[in-house]
Amino acid sequence: IGHYRGWALGALWVFPLAQAWATEPISIISPAVVTEPAKVALGKKLFFEPRLSQSGIISCNSCHNLATSGTDNLPTSIGHNWQKGPINSPTVFNASYNLAQFWDGRAKDLQAQAGGPIEADKEMASSHSVAVATLSSIPQYQQEFVAVYGKGAINMDKITDAIASFEQTLVTPNSPFDLWLQGDKSQLSAQQLKGYQTFKQVGCTACHNGPAVGANSYQKMGLVQPYQTENPSLGRYSVTGKEQDKHVFKVPTLRNIEHTAPYFHDGAVWDLSQAVEIMAQVQLGQTLTPEQTQDIVAFLHSLTGERPQIVLPALPPSPFDPLHVKR
Amino acid sequence: IGHYRGWALGALWVFPLAQAWATEPISIISPAVVTEPAKVALGKKLFFEPRLSQSGIISCNSCHNLATSGTDNLPTSIGHNWQKGPINSPTVFNASYNLAQFWDGRAKDLQAQAGGPIEADKEMASSHSVAVATLSSIPQYQQEFVAVYGKGAINMDKITDAIASFEQTLVTPNSPFDLWLQGDKSQLSAQQLKGYQTFKQVGCTACHNGPAVGANSYQKMGLVQPYQTENPSLGRYSVTGKEQDKHVFKVPTLRNIEHTAPYFHDGAVWDLSQAVEIMAQVQLGQTLTPEQTQDIVAFLHSLTGERPQIVLPALPPSPFDPLHVKR
Ligand code: HEC
Ligand code: HEC
Ligand code: HEC
Ligand code: HEC
Ligand SMILES: [Ca+2]
Ligand SMILES: [Ca+2]
Repeated sequence: IGHYRGWALGALWVFPLAQAWATEPISIISPAVVTEPAKVALGKKLFFEPRLSQSGIISCNSCHNLATSGTDNLPTSIGHNWQKGPINSPTVFNASYNLAQFWDGRAKDLQAQAGGPIEADKEMASSHSVAVATLSSIPQYQQEFVAVYGKGAINMDKITDAIASFEQTLVTPNSPFDLWLQGDKSQLSAQQLKGYQTFKQVGCTACHNGPAVGANSYQKMGLVQPYQTENPSLGRYSVTGKEQDKHVFKVPTLRNIEHTAPYFHDGAVWDLSQAVEIMAQVQLGQTLTPEQTQDIVAFLHSLTGERPQIVLPALPPSPFDPLHVKR
Repeated sequence: IGHYRGWALGALWVFPLAQAWATEPISIISPAVVTEPAKVALGKKLFFEPRLSQSGIISCNSCHNLATSGTDNLPTSIGHNWQKGPINSPTVFNASYNLAQFWDGRAKDLQAQAGGPIEADKEMASSHSVAVATLSSIPQYQQEFVAVYGKGAINMDKITDAIASFEQTLVTPNSPFDLWLQGDKSQLSAQQLKGYQTFKQVGCTACHNGPAVGANSYQKMGLVQPYQTENPSLGRYSVTGKEQDKHVFKVPTLRNIEHTAPYFHDGAVWDLSQAVEIMAQVQLGQTLTPEQTQDIVAFLHSLTGERPQIVLPALPPSPFDPLHVKR
């Protein structure tokens, strides 16, 4: 499971247009293959588990709402105690394709990421020891962890591993663009096809390529012209400390982009057309014509895939005050 | 659809033990019969719709989490701007059986109820006109409302009707106790059966009876001995203004009670055994033996039914800043 999941599936090569597809800068994403359903089911419960937060009401799903394409659709998140977060919440859909997690890539993978929000003061504001104690106080979780991980106490490694396993299933295959890539030419309108050509010609695919149409490199926001923002994030610099990494961010995926407004790390732009115009300007020094912009936007809509069907988990009851555990 | 839904289904009478069942104070609840699936699907979207709130993050599901048996499992809810609500959030499961909605019965049915939280300052803190404008700004909702209600603008009547239709489906049939009532004697353990006898003998069924095991009358909290609480709610009095209605509340359903802690309108009691002891004391003037209490608790666990399988809805994208509509 990783960025090149699609390529690994030999079966895909028998498609009639495999050749053509192999030369495109964007490749398909494949449906998730679940090999450990019990672990995924446990991870799903934990993703929806508000008792992982200090207040008992914030879960991963609060900010990565799977009913709204894996984000909260706010400029920056609202977390514990109604605190405003520092940066826009990215979608968890297709996050397994990210070369690393977070805008600045400070977590190497989904498992490394999942421990963060539980103890982040502006997110769930709990602590790892409290999260472990809370889940351990719930008999049904005790049993489920044993069923998945064998005997032994619940710990953060198991919690984050289960959550990451669930997140691996959050892929959105079979977008019109993917079906087009696989040979079904009826999937794109003439305008969308024109938009895709423009997207390649003006140079968007330099950064937005691969199965996630992004997510596989760090790039400066404002490569050619500075991007004006009030958001103080310095991006990759806060990980590497290198001067040239200031305002360098992980290139976001453009899959399901029509659903994940507002755009950019500061969540300052709601209108996808405007986001496209800004990109052309600040990353490529180009002013797009209104027609070019609209064509690209039409193409971007073809990147909306099938969301996985998510049946709400039935979370187990607490035998006593779960918030009490925390004191 | 109403409190006596179970009784109306002629088919049930052919059960072998129909006679015996008919003499019990508690009756079964029946699976929901969905006659208007498109309306229910729309109502489900609205139930999960955070854009019905001022902040864009609070939906009905925030306080009536369908992953945790239709409540938030907090003493009192946390709403807009992290404000603490005045009273414990009741479950929406089986709420269609309530003789009226809210602890004080101030809304006559689910539709009348659903408009309340959207504009309640401590809940979603929006307004009806803004809620209508927000949904109207989303093309897919426009289409869905027309598909369900025919031509014409979106309005609060349609919004609350759709939400109520979805809530009608939130019933939890086939609890072990219901199966036992229908003749499968293996469903209750000896202790549960003993608990049920005690429940009837000491007089709990005076108030907790019918299909919802409650929810069909208003009763004074502290009928025999006063109930000590810091919660200022006066209950039914705030609707009728009658002195004798002070501290009179709708008797809550005891279905799925093991999942809906903390208990009572003030959410002050987490332990179900303690809630049972308090009830015996303040409503009946009786001190239960520890054995009686444990037997009743064992019986109450047999009231946990099957939760409906809820597939998360895919909420439609906003074409522009949905929060902007609100200014
Ligand atoms: C209060 C809001 C909030 C909560 C709760 C929250 N997140 Fe996040 N999440 C964010 C924000 C904001 C970011 C971006 C932070 C950054 O990049 O510095 C983020 C980033 C992520 C990423 C990285 C995505 C990417 O493209 O880089 C993943 C994966 C993720 N969260 C999963 C989770 C999981 C799992 C949980 C629960 C254990 C969780 N989140 C809880 C707001 C939240
Ligand atoms: C030099 C690299 C680079 C090029 C070229 C580039 N982008 Fe980007 N793109 C980025 C980065 C980095 C971000 C994230 C910037 C931020 O949020 O600060 C981004 C963000 C975006 C977003 C917003 C994504 C989100 O979820 O917030 C869109 C839409 C987008 N790009 C489209 C385009 C289009 C269309 C083009 C071509 C006209 C393009 N990009 C060219 C690197 C690039
Ligand atoms: C911020 C928390 C919160 C939100 C959001 C919220 N509710 Fe409630 N709900 C409550 C509380 C608290 C009560 C009890 C209020 C009372 O009885 O005075 C309640 C009562 C109810 C009841 C009555 C149940 C009974 O047994 O009397 C129903 C039904 C209900 N809500 C449905 C909804 C719907 C539908 C929405 C969204 C449109 C919603 N709620 C939004 C907290 C909330
Ligand atoms: C005279 C009427 C009456 C009798 C008798 C009665 N109850 Fe209650 N019951 C109520 C009312 C009213 C409430 C809600 C009180 C409140 O929250 O302020 C309630 C609440 C409860 C609750 C908490 C429900 C919740 O969701 O918060 C439980 C559990 C309960 N009763 C069990 C019992 C048991 C067991 C008995 C017998 C030992 C009993 N009741 C006898 C009227 C009664
Ligand atoms: Ca975004
Ligand atoms: Ca409760």
